[in-house]
Amino acid sequence: MSKPIIFLQREFRTEFIEKIQALAPDYLIKTALSKDEVDHVAISVGWKKELNDALLASTQLKWVQSISAGVDYLPLEQFSERDVLLSNGSGIHALSISEHIIGTLLSYYRGLNQAVKYQEKKEWVADFTHYDQLAGKNLLVVGTGHIGQQLSKSIRSLGVNVYGINTTGHSAEGFIETYSIKNLTKIVSDMDIVIGILPGTADTYHIFNSDVFDQMKSSAVFVNVGRGNTVHTKELTTALKKQQIAFAALDVFEEEPLPKDSPLWELDNLLITPHISGLTVDFQNKFMKIFLINLKSYLEKNELAVNQVNLKNGY
Amino acid sequence: MSKPIIFLQREFRTEFIEKIQALAPDYLIKTALSKDEVDHVAISVGWKKELNDALLASTQLKWVQSISAGVDYLPLEQFSERDVLLSNGSGIHALSISEHIIGTLLSYYRGLNQAVKYQEKKEWVADFTHYDQLAGKNLLVVGTGHIGQQLSKSIRSLGVNVYGINTTGHSAEGFIETYSIKNLTKIVSDMDIVIGILPGTADTYHIFNSDVFDQMKSSAVFVNVGRGNTVHTKELTTALKKQQIAFAALDVFEEEPLPKDSPLWELDNLLITPHISGLTVDFQNKFMKIFLINLKSYLEKNELAVNQVNLKNGY
Repeated sequence: MSKPIIFLQREFRTEFIEKIQALAPDYLIKTALSKDEVDHVAISVGWKKELNDALLASTQLKWVQSISAGVDYLPLEQFSERDVLLSNGSGIHALSISEHIIGTLLSYYRGLNQAVKYQEKKEWVADFTHYDQLAGKNLLVVGTGHIGQQLSKSIRSLGVNVYGINTTGHSAEGFIETYSIKNLTKIVSDMDIVIGILPGTADTYHIFNSDVFDQMKSSAVFVNVGRGNTVHTKELTTALKKQQIAFAALDVFEEEPLPKDSPLWELDNLLITPHISGLTVDFQNKFMKIFLINLKSYLEKNELAVNQVNLKNGY
Repeated sequence: MSKPIIFLQREFRTEFIEKIQALAPDYLIKTALSKDEVDHVAISVGWKKELNDALLASTQLKWVQSISAGVDYLPLEQFSERDVLLSNGSGIHALSISEHIIGTLLSYYRGLNQAVKYQEKKEWVADFTHYDQLAGKNLLVVGTGHIGQQLSKSIRSLGVNVYGINTTGHSAEGFIETYSIKNLTKIVSDMDIVIGILPGTADTYHIFNSDVFDQMKSSAVFVNVGRGNTVHTKELTTALKKQQIAFAALDVFEEEPLPKDSPLWELDNLLITPHISGLTVDFQNKFMKIFLINLKSYLEKNELAVNQVNLKNGY
């Protein structure tokens, strides 16, 4: 009988392969699969669409460790039916995304995006400049998980007042106050900055829509680094065109890559980044801290120690 | 006999004019001068080149309160000969400049400048991206005054290790260690980021030159928000072209506005901002905190309470 396979859908350094093998001596470790081998995958690290059907057809698949925090692109229902465990990479990208958000806010407040555009034209234009102070602003983090908490910790120390929103309004570390998502439209009117860090689920679909943008200050900034479909793109486009809100920065989109003919490209008060906020230095170390502890616990107790996804909720 | 004049070379709100008048009932407050009135200016708030000769010809001039922190554009020698007191605006812009610096660093590390350029071309290019993590970097502040201290306070809380350089290496709040300016070329080799915040004096002229850039890491970032002539622009241009250092952000230049034919405009690893780092929200309040306390002390004791400039040192 063939050994069960741990399938790594991404390259890792030898030191990590050795650690995995030491923990799981009865498993084969593979980074590519022959047709026969697909049937023996017990653990998949990462999940690529191309192999979706093949891996789901295997009766051996027991556990998927995703690399990303968001798992909306995985076949959650089928995992649920088949009792496949799922854990995510939540936390790995928290520091990167937090630095990305602070960068987008300061580059807007200090006029840096405008400066880049003028530099391209070799124009010295000092009096164009929109400038503002980050310190003293009220910031709302919508989604108080790992990333939201890291952001709160960092940006509070720059003098920002940080509020949070999550499903129930349960308290979370580092927020002055937390509210239930039901109160989103009520809360945003007091905020200078709104940061979307929500997973893509049925409940969060198009949650940032004109009902929200209508209530925001005309000087307000909206940043989304969660899932693209949490934003009603057309209604955000309208809000930006009408300057109902002052500025937005989007790292994620309903359709990626963003199509050439999207009206978003032409908005002067929008910063588009191509889903890069999570790019992380020292990724392998950070990821393996999650995977190795889960691997040990899975082999010993058939349980995951950290980052298990509730397949019904989707996060 | 005419009353002595407090000449405001910039507009201030009525509330501040009233406070000045209440403190100094024997003075006239003017925001524009007739020819005759120039001779009666005792206190000048701000200093414009056009009025340089006229004001210096007045025998009544006793005190100049500059709005900027840097005073290299003022006739320091003539003030010294004539016993004119000088105070500067140091501290007013500290928070703005600190936010500007953090913005330039994060926009570089998170690839935002590149993203702006691709957005202009409607191009979704995710794999171009240079990205790096700010947390954990070693940063050297050259000039540990108000701005340097504010920067240190803010950026330490983002996980950056902050070292300082000043004239003598005297200790300053918030720096892991401080060194004398003599050691600049020795220290920079250990640094990921070097921030210039020096006043323009004979001692600081072209202090950032190839001797310094040669010692820096090829991954290093240089930011200048001090005076333009502290940088040897040609040698920095060469260092950037050869990628001896990875990136620079300049807010100040040897010649301002930066001439159209400057080779700096075309450097892809340079961010040019048009001397905007000091733009400050709530400027009048911040400035008047300095001026009013000095006015009181000047009238009572013929002394300045804060921010007096040593006319020999130039800061």
